[in-house]
Amino acid sequence: MKKVRIALMGLGNVGAGVWTILNSNKKEIMKRSGYEVEVAKILVRDRNKQRDVEVPDEIVTTDFNDILEDDSIKIVVEVMGGINPAREYMLKCMDRKKQIVTANKMLLATGGDELFEKADSKGVMFNYEASVAGGIPIINGIDESLTANKIEELYGIVNGTTNYILTKMQLEKLDFDVALKQAQDMGYAEADPTSDIEGFDAQYKLAILSSLAFGTKINVDNVYREGITKIKSIDIRYAKKFNMVIKLLAIAKENEGKLELKVHPTMIPESHPLANVYDSFNAIFIKGNAVGDLMFYGRGAGSLPTGSAVVSDIIAILRSNVDIENFNSVVKNNLWHRKIKDIKDCASKFYIRLSVMDQSGVLGEITTILGKHNVSLRSVMQKGREESKDKVTIVLITHKIEEEEINSAIEEIINLKSVMQIDNIIRIEDFK
Amino acid sequence: MKKVRIALMGLGNVGAGVWTILNSNKKEIMKRSGYEVEVAKILVRDRNKQRDVEVPDEIVTTDFNDILEDDSIKIVVEVMGGINPAREYMLKCMDRKKQIVTANKMLLATGGDELFEKADSKGVMFNYEASVAGGIPIINGIDESLTANKIEELYGIVNGTTNYILTKMQLEKLDFDVALKQAQDMGYAEADPTSDIEGFDAQYKLAILSSLAFGTKINVDNVYREGITKIKSIDIRYAKKFNMVIKLLAIAKENEGKLELKVHPTMIPESHPLANVYDSFNAIFIKGNAVGDLMFYGRGAGSLPTGSAVVSDIIAILRSNVDIENFNSVVKNNLWHRKIKDIKDCASKFYIRLSVMDQSGVLGEITTILGKHNVSLRSVMQKGREESKDKVTIVLITHKIEEEEINSAIEEIINLKSVMQIDNIIRIEDFK
Repeated sequence: MKKVRIALMGLGNVGAGVWTILNSNKKEIMKRSGYEVEVAKILVRDRNKQRDVEVPDEIVTTDFNDILEDDSIKIVVEVMGGINPAREYMLKCMDRKKQIVTANKMLLATGGDELFEKADSKGVMFNYEASVAGGIPIINGIDESLTANKIEELYGIVNGTTNYILTKMQLEKLDFDVALKQAQDMGYAEADPTSDIEGFDAQYKLAILSSLAFGTKINVDNVYREGITKIKSIDIRYAKKFNMVIKLLAIAKENEGKLELKVHPTMIPESHPLANVYDSFNAIFIKGNAVGDLMFYGRGAGSLPTGSAVVSDIIAILRSNVDIENFNSVVKNNLWHRKIKDIKDCASKFYIRLSVMDQSGVLGEITTILGKHNVSLRSVMQKGREESKDKVTIVLITHKIEEEEINSAIEEIINLKSVMQIDNIIRIEDFK
Repeated sequence: MKKVRIALMGLGNVGAGVWTILNSNKKEIMKRSGYEVEVAKILVRDRNKQRDVEVPDEIVTTDFNDILEDDSIKIVVEVMGGINPAREYMLKCMDRKKQIVTANKMLLATGGDELFEKADSKGVMFNYEASVAGGIPIINGIDESLTANKIEELYGIVNGTTNYILTKMQLEKLDFDVALKQAQDMGYAEADPTSDIEGFDAQYKLAILSSLAFGTKINVDNVYREGITKIKSIDIRYAKKFNMVIKLLAIAKENEGKLELKVHPTMIPESHPLANVYDSFNAIFIKGNAVGDLMFYGRGAGSLPTGSAVVSDIIAILRSNVDIENFNSVVKNNLWHRKIKDIKDCASKFYIRLSVMDQSGVLGEITTILGKHNVSLRSVMQKGREESKDKVTIVLITHKIEEEEINSAIEEIINLKSVMQIDNIIRIEDFK
């Protein structure tokens, strides 16, 4: 049996998963790759930190050069996260002709080009299945299995924390704060949950996915982003009345060569497969012009699921002939240039919840303004005086309309004397 | 741009899809593969047959030798179906060092070994993504993306016709015959629907999937098979009372090195992701020891979805370096030998519906027999005299028990004077 020496950079949650899988599935990995994989070095910041797995002392190092300068180490697995030094280390390893596997979504979404170009120029493989949606093989799915397709639309539930929170709000009728607290207690949400609940994490992942799906460079700042903090229980209850649920979706669509890239809470029909993705599960729904509707569903995070993607990437390197042929280069050298739409030019259907004074003619005033801005209504719901006796809640569902138009209409509606406030605006996606 | 000449053998439903995709997505395919793909020859049986696509007369041939002997043709796509001459043609093409893509599930399930061995010995690629579940990249998923895992369980809805029929029976309360007729009218079922409704089609697909997932040779005759013809509307209604639905599942499990391989109608909880797979959609649900729960969902048949898998397989060949490296060989040379359990040694929970005489003590007699055979009950439902005034329906839900035990118990129960007949027995899978 051939042997290959690899190194891990990082031994946190994902690193521990990789270590565990390499050991517990050693036999399977040998059969499938033709190699015995030996972890020769593990780079950590703090030697004395308590860890989830036990590793032999002699392979642990705090010095990156122990990995870089050891030419017997052929594959380096970056699971430390963050921009630097991860970026610098990977670039240096590529210079030394080491093959790279990474799980680093933030680095890929913000500075991926530099890494892809270096990998190309050095003829090394650079695999990153674990960077999006944990154990779900969506990178490989798009990059290898859907190559016959023009991908038209992509919708992802790619953040487990927010899906857990929205599930609790929907099924157990919890308020946002309570659901967030539970997610933190379960270890699904960080002490500082900003990256998840404000949609940054999903934004990174959409940048990576859409860059691959549409064969173009995506600047993460061109991905529109809105988190779930504004979602109230009452919105989820209204959604239910329209047979819809609320999910944080990462959306990418192509229309006439232009891309729409958006992360925002979205009302979707409860009969759609994405509506049945609960708890911390992830799913990516794709429409291809040949394959039609396709969905990948699974664990988007966690030590072993993410480790599964990392180790499969290692095996892919072992099975390929990297010195001669580099899969990345095929795609990456052939980028399209595509225009990304400004959010104001994107069209959606909208759910609008607003509080108005309980007096006649208000609804008429509102619909007149909407009509002026070409917003037509699919449905109107009016609920009387729940909280205060002068206040009425109106819920509007619009037909499809550009954001620019709806925004102008909303601005005028706010200025109506009879309108107390716009309580919430949520986009609707019915996949038609 | 490099050019590659390929040939199609067959121009039916799938062949037409391949032709359409190669033309309509030409630009994408060139970017992703680095090649311009030219269809140099198309083998048909009857030149004058009416077809769904228009192809140039000069590339159509009825002589296989036009393909075999043309060394400029590097890839041959077999979409003619059936055992022979497909088998003979592919073997001959491999001898001439042509790379092969096939969609032929029947041939793979019954005589795949010979083809894999020939491909190995000749160093050609042999890709067959399209043979199972149409456009869903499940072959690639297992073979490339889940290599880090020991796959423990696999559950597939892999036959669109039966899923369509069961969906109609469930949601529109149709009887089996009416639903089958609708499936035929929609083009989902053949005039002779035996292969679908008796589970042969699913049996072939499970043989292919489980052979790959468990790295072993599977003789299709070792896959237990039961179709859906015995499912009555009343069973679907009873399932609903227990919050379950009925699906035709292809099931593969590993327990202590032994495999369970079964295709049969199965009651599953309505909250499970597979329960929400409707109409002619397919889905494969996998439990891996690292990745956890994973599901692939999409179009399991149809011209374009299946064509999507075929064309992606062609692109995979163009992107790889087949003269030097052969992906199949890595897996196929390293087979495990696994024992396949006889159906009588497999354990399940069971739904048993029986008609008994309306007299006291019957239920006691039945439960005594069940107890003697170690069958314990989770639930009992008794419904009085719907049809005739002396007949009562009893529905039993058992705990997990080996088939051998339940069969012996059933044999004794049938012989009870007070039992008129066993109306149906359906296995239950609750994924626990």
